[in-house]
Amino acid sequence: MQAEIITIGDELLIGQTIDTNSAWMGEQLNAIGMHVHQITSITDHPNHIKTALDEALKRSNLILMTGGLGPTKDDVTKATLTDYFNTKLVLNEEVLEGIEAYFSGRGIPIMEVNKLQAMLPEKCTVLRNLLGTASGMWFDLDGKVVVSMPGVPYEMKGLMSNEVLPRASKHFKTPFIYHRTLLTFGRGESRIAEQIADLEDEMVVQGIKLAYLPAAGRVKLRLSASGTDKIDVMANVDAFFDRVAERLSDIVFGEGKTEMEETLNAVLQANSKTIACAESCTGGTIAALLAKHPGSSTSFLGGVVAYANEVKTAVLGVKESTLAAHGAVSEQTVKEMVMGVIRLTGADYAVSTSGVAGPDGGSEEKPIGTVWIAYGSAEKVFTKQLNLGTNRQRIIAVAGLSALNMLRRAILEGKV
Amino acid sequence: MQAEIITIGDELLIGQTIDTNSAWMGEQLNAIGMHVHQITSITDHPNHIKTALDEALKRSNLILMTGGLGPTKDDVTKATLTDYFNTKLVLNEEVLEGIEAYFSGRGIPIMEVNKLQAMLPEKCTVLRNLLGTASGMWFDLDGKVVVSMPGVPYEMKGLMSNEVLPRASKHFKTPFIYHRTLLTFGRGESRIAEQIADLEDEMVVQGIKLAYLPAAGRVKLRLSASGTDKIDVMANVDAFFDRVAERLSDIVFGEGKTEMEETLNAVLQANSKTIACAESCTGGTIAALLAKHPGSSTSFLGGVVAYANEVKTAVLGVKESTLAAHGAVSEQTVKEMVMGVIRLTGADYAVSTSGVAGPDGGSEEKPIGTVWIAYGSAEKVFTKQLNLGTNRQRIIAVAGLSALNMLRRAILEGKV
Repeated sequence: MQAEIITIGDELLIGQTIDTNSAWMGEQLNAIGMHVHQITSITDHPNHIKTALDEALKRSNLILMTGGLGPTKDDVTKATLTDYFNTKLVLNEEVLEGIEAYFSGRGIPIMEVNKLQAMLPEKCTVLRNLLGTASGMWFDLDGKVVVSMPGVPYEMKGLMSNEVLPRASKHFKTPFIYHRTLLTFGRGESRIAEQIADLEDEMVVQGIKLAYLPAAGRVKLRLSASGTDKIDVMANVDAFFDRVAERLSDIVFGEGKTEMEETLNAVLQANSKTIACAESCTGGTIAALLAKHPGSSTSFLGGVVAYANEVKTAVLGVKESTLAAHGAVSEQTVKEMVMGVIRLTGADYAVSTSGVAGPDGGSEEKPIGTVWIAYGSAEKVFTKQLNLGTNRQRIIAVAGLSALNMLRRAILEGKV
Repeated sequence: MQAEIITIGDELLIGQTIDTNSAWMGEQLNAIGMHVHQITSITDHPNHIKTALDEALKRSNLILMTGGLGPTKDDVTKATLTDYFNTKLVLNEEVLEGIEAYFSGRGIPIMEVNKLQAMLPEKCTVLRNLLGTASGMWFDLDGKVVVSMPGVPYEMKGLMSNEVLPRASKHFKTPFIYHRTLLTFGRGESRIAEQIADLEDEMVVQGIKLAYLPAAGRVKLRLSASGTDKIDVMANVDAFFDRVAERLSDIVFGEGKTEMEETLNAVLQANSKTIACAESCTGGTIAALLAKHPGSSTSFLGGVVAYANEVKTAVLGVKESTLAAHGAVSEQTVKEMVMGVIRLTGADYAVSTSGVAGPDGGSEEKPIGTVWIAYGSAEKVFTKQLNLGTNRQRIIAVAGLSALNMLRRAILEGKV
């Protein structure tokens, strides 16, 4: 069963606001078996709203609209829908009481424009918004449905969860949709595709869709299928998921929406181990990742950002002779950085980085993108050299994730 | 002159990926005088791409498409456009060389599917992608233009900046548009609006558009005007820009696209001074900002991420008695953290943070969002307490920027 999302507001088109609502709505609709066919962001103009609605109704059965329901003049969605569905505005006493309670509860005087928000199209089912003053509106049209909601994310989410999703599940008889996403790190999309070409062909035959979603250093593989027999669909996707995961086991780091640092945190916490980091070229990025998620202080002790060589020697205890003989971007330096930060913090494990992030500082021997990484424990330190291209932001990001991934694998493989 | 954006990819429709590209593109198009009429996110199906393109071309002159250009089977944009524009794929030798250089530079073996990315539609102008293997494609169609770019944000941004925007400015005769953006930190949008209400009224009369662009802790104020007399438009905007900047001088930190850390770096470099940081709740975020930009090693020496109290005492020399008497989130602790990191690194200036980022760890006395910041030199350290709400990511981001801003102002005011 096909759905569409229409988001209304000039702020979306001039780049003032990133549309985060649609992704959330898409995910929720998918979960109840509605397939989102298109997302359309349009201006606050009545004709544009009507045209977009005409087009969407030709293609899809459920149209969710957000935005343009505020009390100010630039909000035209309610008037436009009243006109589109050839109805008129009538006072909704229950909504009026709700709006009055909303204002008195906050000790703010109510204004005439706010009371007008209780005037709602006669032909629609009013969906009560418990988190704001703009109601949701549900219009039935020959079996198809159009819903209008405010664009404020938490108000929209409240209306979706309490009203729209349960009603839509009931109204539409939808097939079951099932997704699983495999997370890989350190190999390009095309090499992965080559490795699983035969599985991909099999999946096509079985009606399973495979999507490649690349980000810096990572590729997510999403397997999706739909059908009426839930058990059957799940078993089919699960079986292929396992085969793909098995085939790519050397690069898989997780499943679903997990981030690399979360998978490492989980491994550390499961083993009651702590971590520290010593960063040169990544400049604090690894620490920021390790500190990002709630509860990270269980395993993350801290670290040293040794951007200048003087900090490498004075704080981390890297030897002057090492820097003189091998340079800051060298195997020996990152090794001493790991040992230094373990000595300082008492962490069970540590990672370190030193590299040429550019745009200056590259040489023939160590071009931009050269990064040395060390990882390990007080007993055993491993090192690896990477070449990460020439984009400064990407070099920093991929170097950080690589270090976390190398340590994670070493722990899982029992090497450290 | 009207433009549209079409983003292609199932991941956008099922909510796996938030479309951040469109907002950035919308902002860039606006800046060169192209008005974005609609943003459409569609599936990876040839027919859907063709229909969306048909509809967009009826309404607008410039259509920018992103996504679906990878080497794998689920990427169908190139083949679809080749068909749509009734042309054929031909080998582009220059692109092939670029792809080969891309792989050999990374030491990765090139595969047949990657070479196929050098097969490009005969009828298009190929836009070289210096950051990846999928080329941009520029199609002319009776004065209208369709451009296809990869969906990977940094590749898209590179192509937009180097190729698409300059070409579009030249191709379409748009009125002269002039923008200036004032950057403020530490005050909400509505309070700023109240403060400059009279100037805003004057600007409306003068045909100058004022947009408020809020981000974590910051509000950007963009003044825009268009016209045929370039000198006149610029003088008019400049005059109001200066008046607004003067009125808000206590919160202005820069102009244009400068980031907070860049304005601080500039102040440090102008005075030949160095900086270090000692972070608890920000966990490396300040260091990562200071290391982010090219040339940052001139002023940034490094720092200590003291997430655990043991690191605060053992590495930074915070006294056990201080932690016992005042706790880690206290004025005294952040002061000792600044002094400790200056002692360790020899930096001229330092900043430090310690706070409750949540979701756990809040108390009645120090609720979630409580952050202590210290900044200064070996001679003089200032402190400040902030209350930054309850959102963990926002607390971390705003605390980091606040610390940088406080030090910047203190240096400029001659306090340190």
